[in-house]
Amino acid sequence: MHSFEIKVPNRDIETALQHKIDRKTKPLGALGLLEKTARKIGLIQQTLTPSLNNPQMLVFAGDHGAAKAGVSAYPQDVTWQMVENFLAGGAAINVFARQNGFGLSVVDAGVAHDFGGQRDGLIDLKIAPGTANYIEQPAMTAAQCAQAIEQGAGIVRGLAAAGCNVVGFGEMGIGNTASASLLTHCLTGLPLAECVGRGTGLDDAGLARKQDLLETALVRYRNGGGDNDPFTVLAEFGGFEIATMVGAMLAAAEAKMVLLIDGFIVGSAALVASCLAPALLDYCVFCHRSAEAGHRTQLLAMGAEPLLDLGLRLGEGTGAALAYPLVQAAVNFLNEMASFESAGVSDKE
Amino acid sequence: MHSFEIKVPNRDIETALQHKIDRKTKPLGALGLLEKTARKIGLIQQTLTPSLNNPQMLVFAGDHGAAKAGVSAYPQDVTWQMVENFLAGGAAINVFARQNGFGLSVVDAGVAHDFGGQRDGLIDLKIAPGTANYIEQPAMTAAQCAQAIEQGAGIVRGLAAAGCNVVGFGEMGIGNTASASLLTHCLTGLPLAECVGRGTGLDDAGLARKQDLLETALVRYRNGGGDNDPFTVLAEFGGFEIATMVGAMLAAAEAKMVLLIDGFIVGSAALVASCLAPALLDYCVFCHRSAEAGHRTQLLAMGAEPLLDLGLRLGEGTGAALAYPLVQAAVNFLNEMASFESAGVSDKE
Repeated sequence: MHSFEIKVPNRDIETALQHKIDRKTKPLGALGLLEKTARKIGLIQQTLTPSLNNPQMLVFAGDHGAAKAGVSAYPQDVTWQMVENFLAGGAAINVFARQNGFGLSVVDAGVAHDFGGQRDGLIDLKIAPGTANYIEQPAMTAAQCAQAIEQGAGIVRGLAAAGCNVVGFGEMGIGNTASASLLTHCLTGLPLAECVGRGTGLDDAGLARKQDLLETALVRYRNGGGDNDPFTVLAEFGGFEIATMVGAMLAAAEAKMVLLIDGFIVGSAALVASCLAPALLDYCVFCHRSAEAGHRTQLLAMGAEPLLDLGLRLGEGTGAALAYPLVQAAVNFLNEMASFESAGVSDKE
Repeated sequence: MHSFEIKVPNRDIETALQHKIDRKTKPLGALGLLEKTARKIGLIQQTLTPSLNNPQMLVFAGDHGAAKAGVSAYPQDVTWQMVENFLAGGAAINVFARQNGFGLSVVDAGVAHDFGGQRDGLIDLKIAPGTANYIEQPAMTAAQCAQAIEQGAGIVRGLAAAGCNVVGFGEMGIGNTASASLLTHCLTGLPLAECVGRGTGLDDAGLARKQDLLETALVRYRNGGGDNDPFTVLAEFGGFEIATMVGAMLAAAEAKMVLLIDGFIVGSAALVASCLAPALLDYCVFCHRSAEAGHRTQLLAMGAEPLLDLGLRLGEGTGAALAYPLVQAAVNFLNEMASFESAGVSDKE
C-alpha cells in the first residue's frame, strides 16, 4: 500500500488564532464548540483567515456478503435502489447537499448491481459486486483492500486539483453498520455489545441475531490468529465502501483538507484511517452523534466532540451535510466579526 | 392589555403529515428531531408542503436598572456599544444572520443611550432609558409593560404584512440574564439557585453576589404581596427588551408564524408569553440549549427539545440564526425527498 504523509499541523499559529477568537465582541468562550472548530480549521489551513472552498460530498456505496446472513432489516437490493435514488436527486443527502451548497458524487465501490455504464454523478470504482461474507471468510483480500484505498485516494486528489478543500463523507450499504461495529470493536478494544446497534431498525430479536452473527465472525477470525492490525481488520470485516473511504480520508488529510465526518459507519472509516495515521484526526470535524448504539463509544475512542446531536440514524452523509452551516459559521465569525478594539466596545470590568 | 387570539393548531392534518414523513426513503424516524420539527411546522401552517418565507431576526435591546448593582461582569455601556456594533454589522448575530439569509432589525426597547435620531436597521421603541432597579422597586410600571407588549406586537404585524412567516428572536442587555433568572424562578416555581448562572462570565464571587441580590429582590417582592401572575412578574423583574419581545412573540403566534427561540433570555420571554397563552408553545422551535445554568431548567419547564447544544452562551439570537438551516432542512426533506413508492425502493422486510 502507498503510504500517506499526514502531518500534525504546526501549532505555532495557535496562540495568534486563540487571541483573534478571544478579542471578538463576545464573552470569552461564548461561541462554545464553534470556537474549537474555528481553531481547528485555522490550524489545518495554517492561517488566521481560513476559507472553505468548493465543498464536495462523496457518498461511497457497497454491498456486504454478510447482509444475506440477516444483519439488516432491509433487503440487499436497497443499496442499488438507493444509489438510483441518489442519482435521481431524491434522497435525504441530495436535499441537504443541495441546500448547503455541496457538489455530490456517488462512488460505486462495490455494489452488487450493474448500473449500465457511465452515469452522471456516479464514479465507478467497483472492486467486486459485494464483499464476501465475513461470517465464513475474510470480506476481501489484502489486494482488494489496498486497491480500494488507492482508488479512494485518487478521487480526493482529483477534488483537490479542482480547488476543493472541504470534503463530506457519506455512505450507503445494506449491512454496513454491522461492519462498522466489528471495526469499532477490534480497533477500540471495547466489548462487542457496546459497539452493536439496531442499524436501520432491527427489533430486539433482530439485534440479538446480529450480535450472535458478529460474535461468530469474530470467533472465526480470532481462531485463525487474527490480530488488531487496522489494515488486516479492515480487509477482514470492512466493506468496499468503507475501505475506499479510508483511502479518500487519508488522501484528504494529506492534502490538508477539512474532513466532515458523518455518523457511525463513516466514523468507523475514520477510526481505521486514524489507526493507520493518527494525525488524521487533526483534519476531522466530527459532525454529529448518531442515535446508533456504538457511535458514542466510537466517538469517545477518537476524542471527538461532534457538532450535532439530533437523533439522526440515516447515514448517506446527512449529518455531515446538515452540520456544514455550523462549520461555515465557525469560519465566518473568525473572519467577519469585529473585535472589542475595532468596534469600540468596552471589555469585561 | 390587548388580548391575543392564539389557537392550538388543528391536529386533523397530523396523520397525513406523519404518513408523508414515514414514506420518505429512510428508515422510520431516522431523521430524529428534524422529523418532529417538520411535523410542527406542517401543523403551524396546516399543510403537507410548508414553506419558510422572508425570515427576519429581531434583536431586542434594553438596559436594566439592576445592572448598576453589579449583576453582570460587563459595564452597562456595553448594551449601547453592542447596538452600535449590530448596526455596523460586526457582531456575531450579524455574521450568522447574513450567512443564513435573515433580514435583521435591532429594536431599541429601552437602552440608556441616545442613538441620535433615525438610524438604518434600528427600530426606536424606547419606553425609557433603562428599567428601574428591581432590587428596590418594580422594574417598570404596569402601563410601561403593557406598552412594551403592544409595541412588540406592532413590529411583528408589520413583518407579517411583508410576507415574513418565520421570526428569530434575539436580545442584548447587560444584566438581562438576572432578569431571566427571576422570571424563570417565579414562573416555574423551581429554586432560584437552579435558575441563576454566570451570564457573560461571572466568577464564583460574582455569581454568589448575583444570587444574593436576586434573593433580596425576591424578598422585597414577596413581602409586598407579589404573586406569580405572569404579567405582574414581567413588570416587576423584566427588562423592556423582554417585555417587548413577549408582545412580539404573542403577535407572531397569533399570525401563525414559526418562532425561532434562542437561549436563556429569549426563553424567559417565551416562558412569560406561554404562561399568558399556552398555545404559543405550538409555534416555537427551540433552537439551542445554552451553557447558561438555568436554561436546562427553563427548557424542561416548557417541554422543549432544542436543536443545537454547542455550549453557546452569547445571546443576540445567535443560537436561533445558527439553527435555522436545520429548520430549513426539516421543511426541505418534507417537500423534496422521494418516497419509497416514487423512488422504487424496497421497504423493510
